[in-house]
Formats: sequence, C-alpha cells, structure tokens
Amino acid sequence: MSKPLLQIALDALSLEKALCDAKQAEACVEIIEVGTILACAEGMKAVSCLRALYPQHILVCDLKTTDGGAILAKMAFEAGADWLTVSAAAHPATKAACQKVAEEFNLTRQLKVPKEIQIEIYGNWTNQDAKDWLTCGITQAIYHRSRDAELAGKGWNEEDIERMKSLSDLGLMLSITGGIVAEDIHLFKQIKNVKAFIAGRSLLGERGIWEAQAIRREIDKYW
Amino acid sequence: MSKPLLQIALDALSLEKALCDAKQAEACVEIIEVGTILACAEGMKAVSCLRALYPQHILVCDLKTTDGGAILAKMAFEAGADWLTVSAAAHPATKAACQKVAEEFNLTRQLKVPKEIQIEIYGNWTNQDAKDWLTCGITQAIYHRSRDAELAGKGWNEEDIERMKSLSDLGLMLSITGGIVAEDIHLFKQIKNVKAFIAGRSLLGERGIWEAQAIRREIDKYW
Repeated sequence: MSKPLLQIALDALSLEKALCDAKQAEACVEIIEVGTILACAEGMKAVSCLRALYPQHILVCDLKTTDGGAILAKMAFEAGADWLTVSAAAHPATKAACQKVAEEFNLTRQLKVPKEIQIEIYGNWTNQDAKDWLTCGITQAIYHRSRDAELAGKGWNEEDIERMKSLSDLGLMLSITGGIVAEDIHLFKQIKNVKAFIAGRSLLGERGIWEAQAIRREIDKYW
Repeated sequence: MSKPLLQIALDALSLEKALCDAKQAEACVEIIEVGTILACAEGMKAVSCLRALYPQHILVCDLKTTDGGAILAKMAFEAGADWLTVSAAAHPATKAACQKVAEEFNLTRQLKVPKEIQIEIYGNWTNQDAKDWLTCGITQAIYHRSRDAELAGKGWNEEDIERMKSLSDLGLMLSITGGIVAEDIHLFKQIKNVKAFIAGRSLLGERGIWEAQAIRREIDKYW
C-alpha cells in the first residue's frame, strides 16, 4: 500500500491556457495529465510541450483510446507520455495492442518511468473484464464519476466504493477522479491500492495551492 | 430508404498527409471524416482546415466522445464539423449533453447541414440503450468491426448483421465501417437504413478511385 499521488488534469481548450495552468500547479503535483479535451483541441503538441517543460513529472495522455490502439499508443508514447488511458469499452484486442506497445518501449529503451496503460472505466463492465485486463499485463485503472454525470448532480455513492474496493482487491492500482476535492478523500479510505487522486479545476486559481495541501493532509491521514 | 453515402476516414498521423489523402479522395465521397487518430494527432486544426477546403462535403469529427460532452461537441462544431461521434459507452448524460449542443446550433444558426450526433457502438450495449439514444433525439449510429479486431482477423458475421438489422428497424440510421471494401457491401443488403459506408485505406493510393466506383456499383445494386 503506497501513498496516493496527486495528479492535475489539464482540460483547457488551448495549449496556451494549459501551459499556464501547468505552471501554476507544477509544484503541487507528481503527475500532469493532458486531458481528453486538451488532446482533442491541440493534438500531440500538448503532450510534447508538457514533456519538454516537465521532465521530472509523470505525464499522462488521456485519450480514452477506443480503437486504433497500436497507432495511438505509439503516437502518445513517442510524444512523451508515460501513461496512456484506454477505454474499458474498447475491444480486448485494442487493450492488448496498447499494452504490447508499452512493453516494447520498456524493453527497448532505458526509461526512468516505464510506459503503462490505464484502463479508464466507462460503460458496462464486470469483474471478469477486470481480471482480463490483469491477465493482459495491465495493472492500472481509473475510476471516476463521469464529468457529465457530475454536472447532472450525481455524487459518489456506496456502490462506487464497493466496486473500487473489488478492483483494488483484484490487484489493480486505481486512480480516482471526478471533481475531486479535499472533503471527498475520506470516502475512499477503505481502498487499498490508490495510485493517484486526479483533480482539475480545484487545483487552479488562487485557491489551488491550498486545495492541493488540503488533499495531501487528507491523504496522509488515511494512507 | 435512401441510398447509402460514401465516407472517407482520414486517419493519417499528420495534417499534411491527411490533406493529401483528402485531395485524392474528394471527388469520390460525400462525407469526409477526421478520424480519431488524426484528431488526436493534430487537434481541431485538422477539422478547421478540412472545413475550409471542403465546404460542400459533410464533415465528421470522430472523437468517440466519452466524457466532457458539451465542451467537446461545442469545440468540434465550432471548428466546422457537421457530425460528431459519441461512444456508446459514454454516460447517458454525456450523450444528452452532446445532443443538446447540436440542437442549440441548429436552432440558432442557419445551417445547410444540421449538426448531428452519431453514437459509435463500442462495448456492451442493449436494444434498450438504442431506444434511449432515439428518445434523446439521436438518430444516427455507427456500427463497425474494431480496427484492432479486424487486425486480429475477425470478419463480419451473422450476429453483426442481425444486430445492425435490429438497430435499423428501431429507426436508427447506420454508418458501417471496419476495413470496408466493395466485396463486403452485399453482406449488408438486408439493412434498410444505411446512412453511409465508411472506408479509409481502401480509398487511398492509385487503386482508390476504382475501389470507390466498385463500392458505388455495389450500393446501386442493393439500395
């Protein structure tokens, strides 16, 4: 059981705004994420710019890869991403293709941070699916409230926690996201394998640094 | 029952290559698609460049939107996309958010081609899900072999055709994709509501124009 890291999701609509947001948050986080919105807006240039600026951070590219796995994984890793998200709804062949690309990078290059795939949990899925991800060599998953569900007022509930516990008990490392603020952290204290908490908007603006510190204090309480 | 259109999916890794591919195929197709790979590589610039170059074509932005629906839909439509793909695995709130953005564009602007959402069928889904898409106002869906499943040797089978027929019978207009070539077209002749056949690689290169003509001949035979 390692201590959860803190990740900022950059979801600006322009590279300029994303770079400013990253500059503001860099000291507070171990992981910087090129969010789907930013990646779709600016393409891989967003990944390569952030890689150049932040060589010490873990860099996530959140493509929610749903098809074309080998091509997208190669593209994201070559641009400098350490971890790539893949949709749980993708065909098993897509997940396997992404994992294979990651393993090839790890075998053939001297990497400080190994390339990894994160299954982003969307759609209908079962514990058997999660076992298949592990069998395929994938050890990370992302559990979240959908941004749109969150906007529609859906909170974290007991079922979310139970499902996260069962994924963690299977051996998956979980990153948790969806409007995360410090007051939410205690909800997840029963989950053993938390890789990271992912926050976005709450880490920006003048309150950002205080929020990051508040999240850290909560993490230190429970892990 | 209208005649299926022909759509080219541009999945180049660079804008330069995509623009050359589009130039080569423009006379053969009614619909140009910024594929997921191209969109992730180059961002919305790929959409806006193709919009500027091809004002007469229908332009699809294949983001396979999985979250952040309102923001991504607004971004893609403002860049010039006519249709936007949304993953079937997305939360219902995400689909509704995208549809709402499309309807707002259609209400407030004089558009030659109305903005539309296309549900891209990935992951586990039921006929009830498809009814929910229709209830939400969405009338298009995309049925495909996953690119990675195709690479793994998976062909079209009877179950695919049955599922497409049931979606068509519910009233959804289907676009069909996954390594489409002229010899495949007859497989789909029982499906009433085919909006488009989507091809990519087969429409490129020196054989591209012949392949497009061969697909048209097959379409004319069955619809």
